[in-house]
Amino acid sequence: MFVSLTTDFGHAYTAICAGVVATIAPEADVLVLSDEVTPYAITEGALLLRQALPYLPAGVHAAIIDPGVGTPRRPIAIRTRRGDTLVGPDNGLLMPAAARLGLERAYLLENPAYRLAEVSTSFHGRDVFSPAAAHLASGTDITELGPELSLDGLQALDIPEPEIANGRLTATVLYTDPFGSLILSAERKHLEEAVGPLEHGTVLETEAGPVSFESTYGSVPKGHPLLWVDSSGQLGLAVNQGSAAERFGLADGDALTLRGRPGSATR
Amino acid sequence: MFVSLTTDFGHAYTAICAGVVATIAPEADVLVLSDEVTPYAITEGALLLRQALPYLPAGVHAAIIDPGVGTPRRPIAIRTRRGDTLVGPDNGLLMPAAARLGLERAYLLENPAYRLAEVSTSFHGRDVFSPAAAHLASGTDITELGPELSLDGLQALDIPEPEIANGRLTATVLYTDPFGSLILSAERKHLEEAVGPLEHGTVLETEAGPVSFESTYGSVPKGHPLLWVDSSGQLGLAVNQGSAAERFGLADGDALTLRGRPGSATR
Amino acid sequence: MFVSLTTDFGHAYTAICAGVVATIAPEADVLVLSDEVTPYAITEGALLLRQALPYLPAGVHAAIIDPGVGTPRRPIAIRTRRGDTLVGPDNGLLMPAAARLGLERAYLLENPAYRLAEVSTSFHGRDVFSPAAAHLASGTDITELGPELSLDGLQALDIPEPEIANGRLTATVLYTDPFGSLILSAERKHLEEAVGPLEHGTVLETEAGPVSFESTYGSVPKGHPLLWVDSSGQLGLAVNQGSAAERFGLADGDALTLRGRPGSATR
Repeated sequence: MFVSLTTDFGHAYTAICAGVVATIAPEADVLVLSDEVTPYAITEGALLLRQALPYLPAGVHAAIIDPGVGTPRRPIAIRTRRGDTLVGPDNGLLMPAAARLGLERAYLLENPAYRLAEVSTSFHGRDVFSPAAAHLASGTDITELGPELSLDGLQALDIPEPEIANGRLTATVLYTDPFGSLILSAERKHLEEAVGPLEHGTVLETEAGPVSFESTYGSVPKGHPLLWVDSSGQLGLAVNQGSAAERFGLADGDALTLRGRPGSATR
Repeated sequence: MFVSLTTDFGHAYTAICAGVVATIAPEADVLVLSDEVTPYAITEGALLLRQALPYLPAGVHAAIIDPGVGTPRRPIAIRTRRGDTLVGPDNGLLMPAAARLGLERAYLLENPAYRLAEVSTSFHGRDVFSPAAAHLASGTDITELGPELSLDGLQALDIPEPEIANGRLTATVLYTDPFGSLILSAERKHLEEAVGPLEHGTVLETEAGPVSFESTYGSVPKGHPLLWVDSSGQLGLAVNQGSAAERFGLADGDALTLRGRPGSATR
Repeated sequence: MFVSLTTDFGHAYTAICAGVVATIAPEADVLVLSDEVTPYAITEGALLLRQALPYLPAGVHAAIIDPGVGTPRRPIAIRTRRGDTLVGPDNGLLMPAAARLGLERAYLLENPAYRLAEVSTSFHGRDVFSPAAAHLASGTDITELGPELSLDGLQALDIPEPEIANGRLTATVLYTDPFGSLILSAERKHLEEAVGPLEHGTVLETEAGPVSFESTYGSVPKGHPLLWVDSSGQLGLAVNQGSAAERFGLADGDALTLRGRPGSATR
């Protein structure tokens, strides 16, 4: 059975989780999807899961970005139509991926038989979520782990909506990718709603200068900015072989406004 | 057979070690516990191993934090009562984990048949330790690798002791975790020896202001400092959803003094 | 079958590639050799592959450092005499490793049956290269993926040659390793051509002061600089338990000149 782990713990603490899985489920195939989500960044983790899980084998996917560890937030498991089980805290982290894979049922992880013998207050990734994932991967029925939960009662993820008004789109920087590209809280359809149909080469205005809508980094010269649709469907602002975060001076949570150009057309 | 690797080499050089293991022992299940121990930080690596190995399957655990590579320090393997073989340099790195898992016997890794054909002067992780780990994982008897060593002759790890005097505990920052939390060279019992019984909510004084003893990060508001017992049993200084290293201006090796508060009680 | 991945994507996007491989070839044994090559640094990636692949099992090795993604550069696969298949863009990245393992034949990856159903413009690592690697690892014949290419038409890697004149060697910093050591575009033979025979202890002059040629870091006191032959055969400039990049103020692409010392001998 395939097991993935997604955390904000860094390498070593995530490897400890992988070790717990390997101890309980020696036959499981464990992949660390990420151990370097920005600490406590639930939205970043949630969007990564939504983007990545469709490309991973169906299996057990544990995700632990959990600012509420040690407080009474609920540990849960979600079954998807594709046949996955998503394991993590009930703080919205699992919801976008669950929606993409088909949200079916949810369960509370409360049976102490499927936790480590001693549960610490600060490392539920190791003591609660990894053992649950491992037992599920080795065939334990999900109904053994705890009672079914109402889907309506699950915590939704709070993603900022883009604002569209007067030919302008204002979006939030959801996260910065490893290349310094800025992933925005808007899709192509939102921008088209604001400024009209886009073609490759359409120029948009920002406060830091013009940027063209392109299919790929390589469509503009090295060092030039571009707006593109990233592999998860979100709009992104990038600099070919450079960092948009540095060029535009923007970080996670900042707002960016895009305006159409009067008479703008393709290059 | 399960094999773990712990190094200060960074990703690629550690992956080369994993490749050497996979070449010699294709059936081994290799987990990189960490490839990002602070370079040359023997104490940090040793405490990570002590904390992590009990959660990994019994197996062969190679650890290479080796400022003495190329000098005559001894390469060794240690058998534990749990059934592990710890492989690494004789510089104290393996000792705390060996003590926790039950130190049984030690051997010198000197048989050239279990090294690569060419041994470089600077990369014994690849040329000496990984081949030894792989051969052990594929069933070679440990006595084939070299003569047994006296346990008394093994290099101990030099960890600073906390100082307790006049109602004060002075501890050293052993390492900084990925969240910026500071792990101290003291346990709860040492602090209680200095300031009396602790309860959750007990306030301690530091030069940078008061900090309360808590069971978990989430017990204090976001941005507030706390003192807690980390998952390895050491005292740690943290900031909920923030960095204690930045807040207190402390780094590895620095000293921190904690004092009880007159008439202090729980909140 | 053994599959390795080498990218400049960071952890998560590389793990998505590993997930694609695991989906298509569940039996493959996947090792991420590196996900942290400096973005767009083809030379750094190429030298890492040349250094590392001889220590990994023969298998399918996919490498994607691809500033030209989305432009018409060719995706290729190279067969080696050792029995490997190297998969990546035709931009020179694969060539030094192919030369070391024995360059035999090359093929264009153009058959859409061995790509994902939807190919994005910006993430060919996921959509083109990982599926090709996975299909090759699960036994698809390389001739199914596309037509054979002329070896003469493959893009060579552009590595700067060292300059030797007037008893001086001027080399380029090819990359900086995780310890801050500087790997130079020259081998021992080039330095000997410039300054005569080297022995351990021979002192060379640089603009930032003298440095001795040593067999290993530990041959000089902590904090002292040294020149040594790294595990890939290149000359490197290091500081024992310190950073040569900081000490010498040099970064990738910078030039360093080494001169012999009149009457220099071993210490």
